[in-house]
Amino acid sequence: MTLIKEETATGTMMVIDGLELSNWDRDFLLELQKGGVTCVHACCGLWENARETLSKVSEWYRFFREHDDLVLPVKRGEDIRKAQDEGKIGIILGTQNTSALEDELGLVEVFEQLGIKIMQLTYNNQNLIGSSCYEENDAGLSRYGKLIVEEMNRVGMVIDLSHVGEQTSLDAIRHSERPVAITHANPDWIYPSRRNKSREVLQALKDNGGVLGLCAYPHLINGPETSIDEFVDLIVETIDFMGVEHVAIGTDLTLNMSDDFLHWMRMGRWTHDMDYGAGSKSNPSWPTWPSWFKGPADFPNISDALLDRGVSREDVASVMGGNWYRFFDESFRRQKEM
Amino acid sequence: MTLIKEETATGTMMVIDGLELSNWDRDFLLELQKGGVTCVHACCGLWENARETLSKVSEWYRFFREHDDLVLPVKRGEDIRKAQDEGKIGIILGTQNTSALEDELGLVEVFEQLGIKIMQLTYNNQNLIGSSCYEENDAGLSRYGKLIVEEMNRVGMVIDLSHVGEQTSLDAIRHSERPVAITHANPDWIYPSRRNKSREVLQALKDNGGVLGLCAYPHLINGPETSIDEFVDLIVETIDFMGVEHVAIGTDLTLNMSDDFLHWMRMGRWTHDMDYGAGSKSNPSWPTWPSWFKGPADFPNISDALLDRGVSREDVASVMGGNWYRFFDESFRRQKEM
Repeated sequence: MTLIKEETATGTMMVIDGLELSNWDRDFLLELQKGGVTCVHACCGLWENARETLSKVSEWYRFFREHDDLVLPVKRGEDIRKAQDEGKIGIILGTQNTSALEDELGLVEVFEQLGIKIMQLTYNNQNLIGSSCYEENDAGLSRYGKLIVEEMNRVGMVIDLSHVGEQTSLDAIRHSERPVAITHANPDWIYPSRRNKSREVLQALKDNGGVLGLCAYPHLINGPETSIDEFVDLIVETIDFMGVEHVAIGTDLTLNMSDDFLHWMRMGRWTHDMDYGAGSKSNPSWPTWPSWFKGPADFPNISDALLDRGVSREDVASVMGGNWYRFFDESFRRQKEM
Repeated sequence: MTLIKEETATGTMMVIDGLELSNWDRDFLLELQKGGVTCVHACCGLWENARETLSKVSEWYRFFREHDDLVLPVKRGEDIRKAQDEGKIGIILGTQNTSALEDELGLVEVFEQLGIKIMQLTYNNQNLIGSSCYEENDAGLSRYGKLIVEEMNRVGMVIDLSHVGEQTSLDAIRHSERPVAITHANPDWIYPSRRNKSREVLQALKDNGGVLGLCAYPHLINGPETSIDEFVDLIVETIDFMGVEHVAIGTDLTLNMSDDFLHWMRMGRWTHDMDYGAGSKSNPSWPTWPSWFKGPADFPNISDALLDRGVSREDVASVMGGNWYRFFDESFRRQKEM
């Protein structure tokens, strides 16, 4: 734990996780604190419509209030800095879908005002905006989708492409005037999966100035047996391809979640039959996590392993949090402030 | 126009209107500017549920954006001060009902975050929270209503009792730990109407530290024939009863509105038959306004008439805007900030 603790003491190092789902409670916050985590993008919705998302948001407000000694809601880069200064966990709310927007362009600003600072354009299905990585055909960004991208640019809401299809991703990156994010996915030539990303998409993301959060979700690597050395290989190879300033962490951590939630996550209301997403019939439940990342207290295992591999302290700090901080600080501003 | 112009030039006088409904457009903003108006509480909803209120809010965001050279959304007292400094019209969004909250306590904070800083507990009907002035029986504040009052207190959302029934009003004032408002109504012993307020309610409002916005809505005075002298009588008599610091203006101005909107305002979805509210079968349409208040450019007629009556400049400034400013500045803060 040397690096994170040392550097945290001097106020120079941040650990920021590009996405976590979890059964958020006080114990989980204490685990995050143990891991030296400064800020997390927390999933606030998957298939919910506008009305349902209001309830999800209000549950988060209650969580913020009940644990205000430990957490701090993040709407701007300076809130992340404040969380670090106060030793709290900054939480960025985001949804893994644009279902909350329904067919109403004006709701982008409404949800941005409520603190939803990140939206993934699609979850696992085609929607009004574009296509997911699991659709057979991806027609790219729709007419409405283009307007949504422009509006997200305008209000300072991050466009997330993690589960988004290839063509829709390329269209969104091209159409966006501001850098976009892939908060939680891996290069597909290292770990083949529909959910992981092609060279073409990652090259476009890099050229657009965006950031990729490398993902420890077992189904997106080699399962729970993946070693920390292999995960460091993934980081180092991705840095070689994209440049260190475009690479970060987005664990996609899912701890203490119910099977009911897993079914909601995978099936929403759109199917009566199980859809496994990145899982499979032989591996249908929540994944088992690798021994070196059983929870957020294990973040120092990643930074220590990067140091052991000879990555510089500066680059480790960039990957562990510095890149997300820079990206969020810029991206959360309104376009006219830039 | 002497007073408002003089004092505005020195930055000491504000004109704040406790409620306006209007077909908000650029011409209307220019009229407000002509009248020296600093800030208006604008009606953002009547019968709308949570989802529908999101659309209303987003329409207001668009209005703010399209006219940002003239308007400034108000969420805190300092925004009113900023509007005055920049010569803009500050707009406070409020709803004349709690229908947007549905049965969900957590939505108070959600709508407060969206900029709804004032909610009337009931419009013209009984709801989940209490009873309106038009119900035959008023059972007072409900169990849910008490929790809503506490939550509005906590987040800094103003409780408005203008259309609320007698018993619910008395209960709300007693239950609220913070001053409440009657943004647009008159004493009922001066102008008898179910919509106007009893001595008991106004005494309780005064004791609680609240503010009453005296109302020029023709149905709540003696119709369009009411003279400016009679309106000044109303102000002076109310000051005598309540003390000058509790008296302000809330015109309830309704300009350039359609009959469709009038029907929605009166009937919502709760009746198939016309309900006239403060109107009547013989006077079913939008009211004609008195000659001395045809629109917001006429505010100086009120302040000039008060001066002519011998009210001190200081008291005129309190009634025209100073009292609302003090009240909103305090009330819009979170309870823990007080």
